[in-house]
Amino acid sequence: MTSVEKARVRAESDARAHGYYLHPDPASLQDLLEGLQRNEERYGYPSCPCRLASGAFAVDRDIICPCDYRDPDVQEYGYCYCALYIRKDVSEGETPITPIPERRPPAKQARAYDVAAETTNDKHVNIPVTLLLTNTLNLWYCKQCGYVCFREDSPYLCPICKAKKEMFAPLSITVQG
Amino acid sequence: MTSVEKARVRAESDARAHGYYLHPDPASLQDLLEGLQRNEERYGYPSCPCRLASGAFAVDRDIICPCDYRDPDVQEYGYCYCALYIRKDVSEGETPITPIPERRPPAKQARAYDVAAETTNDKHVNIPVTLLLTNTLNLWYCKQCGYVCFREDSPYLCPICKAKKEMFAPLSITVQG
Amino acid sequence: MTSVEKARVRAESDARAHGYYLHPDPASLQDLLEGLQRNEERYGYPSCPCRLASGAFAVDRDIICPCDYRDPDVQEYGYCYCALYIRKDVSEGETPITPIPERRPPAKQARAYDVAAETTNDKHVNIPVTLLLTNTLNLWYCKQCGYVCFREDSPYLCPICKAKKEMFAPLSITVQG
Repeated sequence: MTSVEKARVRAESDARAHGYYLHPDPASLQDLLEGLQRNEERYGYPSCPCRLASGAFAVDRDIICPCDYRDPDVQEYGYCYCALYIRKDVSEGETPITPIPERRPPAKQARAYDVAAETTNDKHVNIPVTLLLTNTLNLWYCKQCGYVCFREDSPYLCPICKAKKEMFAPLSITVQG
Repeated sequence: MTSVEKARVRAESDARAHGYYLHPDPASLQDLLEGLQRNEERYGYPSCPCRLASGAFAVDRDIICPCDYRDPDVQEYGYCYCALYIRKDVSEGETPITPIPERRPPAKQARAYDVAAETTNDKHVNIPVTLLLTNTLNLWYCKQCGYVCFREDSPYLCPICKAKKEMFAPLSITVQG
Repeated sequence: MTSVEKARVRAESDARAHGYYLHPDPASLQDLLEGLQRNEERYGYPSCPCRLASGAFAVDRDIICPCDYRDPDVQEYGYCYCALYIRKDVSEGETPITPIPERRPPAKQARAYDVAAETTNDKHVNIPVTLLLTNTLNLWYCKQCGYVCFREDSPYLCPICKAKKEMFAPLSITVQG
């Protein structure tokens, strides 16, 4: 099985597991899978084929496919930013696939561009620590189902119960004794 | 897409993601989706259309759809309390849909009634703090797969590995140094 | 519904929820489900029907079905060690089902054999505490999506975002004040 076929099998499984479908046009789908595969080879992780990656994991984390924005985008628009993952009604052709807004916050985009610029200008330059250290990780929990995660910010949708971002609160660990 | 259609798409995706089906009768299904939508508008969260909500999030948390009781009910009876989510064999008509016992503990039902009574009698009365503070949250982990959550009590089924409630233990954080 | 039928319904739901299929041969599938059911009765948990269980939960934890090795095996080979869970392309007969390597680490296999030997020789002997206490549990988090779990070692694949084992790091809780 080629690397692109592996990417296809993985995307198909993930789509089924989430109740999604893949892009209905075979040529577009092939392009997206090849883009994922190229990024996997280049960066060591399959970052989004429709966005600029910086090459620094901590900065690209949110756009590694399936990206942080996939589930809220499929819920709101019917498909993700790339239209790799789409909803049943879109798959059945009831809704046309047109460009959707970029949900990734401008601050995260800017950070990625800054790091990408650093790494492109001189492959051996050190990425400024300040750029990478902006990622402070926190414990979060979903007030609806209790799901706990350790991330820079809370997820857009709870992966367990699908509660929205507003349902997450920081989890402070207090110690007795 | 109307709000009820959004509720339908969300329920369809969630059903597929869990290997479930939706109520086979279109009119019953429409009623349930409209009930969810009404609760979403009234309370700000889609609480179960077949149960009385109090309007206080901390008290209604366990009956926000998909409720805490869905997965154990589908596993044991073939469908949830509302029969919104049903199992394949029931969907194929091998098992009739008849009322199932209420799995929600009487203490939680009573708490909801108490809060609902308070809020109905006088919309501006303060809900007694004691009613709301009975929700002490704890960290729990699944002894089978390690899933960690922060909830009032452990889930009925682990959302990751489907282990039963007895497989959960409290997670005490101890600190070194 | 018989116990074996319950095991079948549970396996079918879990397969659908993960985008997997079950063994295509009805007789083989029946054997596997009966094996799971026998282990559930014998040990109190459905340990893998193709591996030796020790009877000590802490030692068998990783081979309770769905075992820790299922998802990486399906991803790499197309089916799990038992071939109970298989990938779509294998289900469609494109790939033959042949034995795959045992992914369970030799140290865990050895521990299981040691405990099994102790319990078989004399049902009432105490299992040496040292054998069981080798299971030190730690908090882990997925650097890609933030999933948190409390286990002996990190999972092979993140159950939420499917990131590989290398994406997990220990989570140290530090306390302020």
